Amino acid sequence: MRIFVIFLVLSLFPLAVFSDESDLLPRPLIFETQLKTVKDNVNLHCTSWRFAAETNNLAPWKTIPVQCAGYVKDYLMGEGYVLDLERVSEEAKFYATSFEISNDKKDIWIFDIDETLLSNLPYYLEHGCGVEVFDYSKFDKWVEKGKAPAIAPSLKLYQKVKDLGYKVFLLTGRSENHRGITVENLRNAGFHNWDKLILRSLDDKHKTATIFKSEKRDEMVKEGYRIRGNSGDQWSDLLGFAMSERSFKLPNPMYYIP
Amino acid sequence: MRIFVIFLVLSLFPLAVFSDESDLLPRPLIFETQLKTVKDNVNLHCTSWRFAAETNNLAPWKTIPVQCAGYVKDYLMGEGYVLDLERVSEEAKFYATSFEISNDKKDIWIFDIDETLLSNLPYYLEHGCGVEVFDYSKFDKWVEKGKAPAIAPSLKLYQKVKDLGYKVFLLTGRSENHRGITVENLRNAGFHNWDKLILRSLDDKHKTATIFKSEKRDEMVKEGYRIRGNSGDQWSDLLGFAMSERSFKLPNPMYYIP
Repeated sequence: MRIFVIFLVLSLFPLAVFSDESDLLPRPLIFETQLKTVKDNVNLHCTSWRFAAETNNLAPWKTIPVQCAGYVKDYLMGEGYVLDLERVSEEAKFYATSFEISNDKKDIWIFDIDETLLSNLPYYLEHGCGVEVFDYSKFDKWVEKGKAPAIAPSLKLYQKVKDLGYKVFLLTGRSENHRGITVENLRNAGFHNWDKLILRSLDDKHKTATIFKSEKRDEMVKEGYRIRGNSGDQWSDLLGFAMSERSFKLPNPMYYIP
Repeated sequence: MRIFVIFLVLSLFPLAVFSDESDLLPRPLIFETQLKTVKDNVNLHCTSWRFAAETNNLAPWKTIPVQCAGYVKDYLMGEGYVLDLERVSEEAKFYATSFEISNDKKDIWIFDIDETLLSNLPYYLEHGCGVEVFDYSKFDKWVEKGKAPAIAPSLKLYQKVKDLGYKVFLLTGRSENHRGITVENLRNAGFHNWDKLILRSLDDKHKTATIFKSEKRDEMVKEGYRIRGNSGDQWSDLLGFAMSERSFKLPNPMYYIP
């Protein structure tokens, strides 16, 4: 299907952009309409691709379709991404308030970190927003700067669930080596007083995120915690076993983690 | 958030459509641009709503936002829905071919029926495509006609998984009373030789679809079946317990079943 879409999208470009339709340039309105048609078709195909990615139908995938590079960047830099982030935060807040929090302090909310609490958009904007294959060593250098900004709607949700009395557990695929800088980055971005910060130890290094995170959730359940909510931008934050009673999928059209 | 979006969307309409901007009518290009801006904003908000619905962030919801009625209808009647249906079918076929099917005939694929194998779009087009609250008795009358057409990309997937040697189990929230007409409808639409058709008995009537379908999947697992794939348009087809190794979420922006 990916090949089919790429073929379709590619087959649209020559229609107006690369063909001898350019002799229509003196008639700007017609030319504009044709450009708009090309853009509408790219939008249509890239929206369809994005839906498939966000609903976990595409898994696994390594990079975004190169034809969708502009679409994805426009989405991330435009209102679409902000709207989606705000909506998932609002829906999660609505759900979070629906519980009577028990006095036993066993009601918890799990947050992933990257693209959930902290945004690596400054890094990805310099690396093609998903067009480039993920580069661990480059990304690690960015992480080690500790400059990732907060995702504002997630910070609101974080504060809300804290205020409501949930315990907050942060569960991230970041390595234990990055604990110090992660704590510093989170604090500087406005996140305080979490109850646990679980990073990936050497033993967990070769596990998929789905397995690593499921095992950690399973430990929580065995310790008597009730996982009421779980916020993550990857399905590997949310699926597997010992799943949360309710999961909230934040948008991320840039990369896929198994 | 829903209220926020409705407010936002509503606040856009007066900008050009209902205000005294109508005195710009003699300058059609400017008026068109404003209409386009309104439409772009409705698209933006309704796309965001659709993402939230399709990623299960909205659950539960009863009807689509009335402002998105046109957007949802355009999506269903335009290329978007077809593209999304084709993509999920192709991705599922790709995954299905990745297994060596065992000779023990225990590899199975589960399909939901409504909006997965059969389309009720002719019914929903006459009932607002999600704007109207679901009406069991009206919908039952439509089901009893047995005229729901096949979703063509799903029929292709159905045939592919049959050819590959999977057993095909149909698991539907339709009631056991509708077995006869459902069999007739499926056959007339081109679906043949399924291995099981499981409908909702009287005992299952008051269960959520998530529980009913999880229990039925659990029985399959206990009978030794390996649930390799599961195709459904509702998260209640896919989530719960005894989940499939891989799930495929078909698009459905019209209704939500818990």
